[in-house]
Amino acid sequence: MNPNFCFIGAGNLATHLSKRLLNSGFSIIQVFSRTEKSAKILAKTLGCSFTNVPENITPDADIYIIAINDSSFDEVLAKINFHNKLVVHTSGSQPLSVLENSSSNYGVLYPLQTFSINFESDFHNIPVFVEANTAQNEEILLYIARKISSTVSVFSSEKRKYLHIAAVFACNFVNYLYTIAAELLKTKDIPFDVLRPLILETALKVQELEPERAQTGPAVRFDKNIISEHFEEIKGYNNYAELYYILSKSIFKHHYKTQK
Amino acid sequence: MNPNFCFIGAGNLATHLSKRLLNSGFSIIQVFSRTEKSAKILAKTLGCSFTNVPENITPDADIYIIAINDSSFDEVLAKINFHNKLVVHTSGSQPLSVLENSSSNYGVLYPLQTFSINFESDFHNIPVFVEANTAQNEEILLYIARKISSTVSVFSSEKRKYLHIAAVFACNFVNYLYTIAAELLKTKDIPFDVLRPLILETALKVQELEPERAQTGPAVRFDKNIISEHFEEIKGYNNYAELYYILSKSIFKHHYKTQK
Repeated sequence: MNPNFCFIGAGNLATHLSKRLLNSGFSIIQVFSRTEKSAKILAKTLGCSFTNVPENITPDADIYIIAINDSSFDEVLAKINFHNKLVVHTSGSQPLSVLENSSSNYGVLYPLQTFSINFESDFHNIPVFVEANTAQNEEILLYIARKISSTVSVFSSEKRKYLHIAAVFACNFVNYLYTIAAELLKTKDIPFDVLRPLILETALKVQELEPERAQTGPAVRFDKNIISEHFEEIKGYNNYAELYYILSKSIFKHHYKTQK
Repeated sequence: MNPNFCFIGAGNLATHLSKRLLNSGFSIIQVFSRTEKSAKILAKTLGCSFTNVPENITPDADIYIIAINDSSFDEVLAKINFHNKLVVHTSGSQPLSVLENSSSNYGVLYPLQTFSINFESDFHNIPVFVEANTAQNEEILLYIARKISSTVSVFSSEKRKYLHIAAVFACNFVNYLYTIAAELLKTKDIPFDVLRPLILETALKVQELEPERAQTGPAVRFDKNIISEHFEEIKGYNNYAELYYILSKSIFKHHYKTQK
């Protein structure tokens, strides 16, 4: 079994996943993107053809990978003829059934990771979650997923949705808190560098401990003096004081409830 | 110069810092804690004496390290005679001046890290920030700090306070978001393990990138469908939907403002 692929989409996820498939011995034969420039750049990296015209998408791929924004799904899918081949999306939040009108062979291959164009990810350690409409298509996706990742599971659409919500908290929102910290330091001309070891340690701790057991800081100690001093200090910066208050209150309530 | 130390406090920070000082060739001669059991445990680890009676604190230490909760500062300090030796606190939020009535020699040695009893920290990579009331005391603290850490800076009380607030966002609040993620996964019987690689990657990314450039997810794409679907899904769980909404709104506003 050595299927070849056509990529629908040329963004961060498409770039990292297609390169990983290529490095794992699979062939990518074409990249489609509505933005011609993006299609061209990725196709050049992969050494394949590209198009920005849905009608020119190749009929010769064995598997079509949909790696586009969730908000473009309906519009893009409606325009493409998949010739009843295996169509696979890569989204955390879209159910499997979103593909049921596109082909009679469809599935999901969801890598749980945050991809940025300018940062290389070690794909081998990224957990990949698959789902498919038939046992045979599931087998195909498991075969592919195991070639690119060491951690592969079959997950339902419902479970995958929760995985995605949890990832929004543990990755997207976390990164935003890093951003706030960087901004607060900047007001006193302190470089973000000083915080980097603490950020890494905080993530390393929960590689072993449950996060609930790793909680430290003024909120979990309920140190009212420090909390109100911090609150007053950052009142002028966007809504940071409001966030400080809500998160501190939540931490306290969480630990108070747990210990009762 | 080989000063010996007395520790006032026997919690997480006192434990990690005293062990590191011992490993770096310094002597710890006594541990004081109001909780006799904690004093005893730490003293046993360090091979020194202990007491829970302020009057029995040794007059023979060269340096007294205050490693107690911020909320206990006034009460504990008032009870101790420091014999005009060098008194050093380790708090992010207490100003240098909090020690001015305790001795005519005082300073701050603040390691920017999250310490848990059951997790070993690599102290060498922890940034340490010092401040002192005289140039001579600053020299002493720099000497000690450089023995235990590779990253040592002199920081004012004002800057240190911002460091601490930033650390609350980038460590304490971040860890709480990990906790929420773990709880949401638990509702669908998904083990926290699946999220650990993503958490580590998110922290690794900002070791190189500025966090603002590393932002991904539905909020920064302003994917309204996904955001409202997630919001509806988690409405029943504590205040998680409220947090989801506030953080998403803040991320969008932040990036919209920045790009204008």
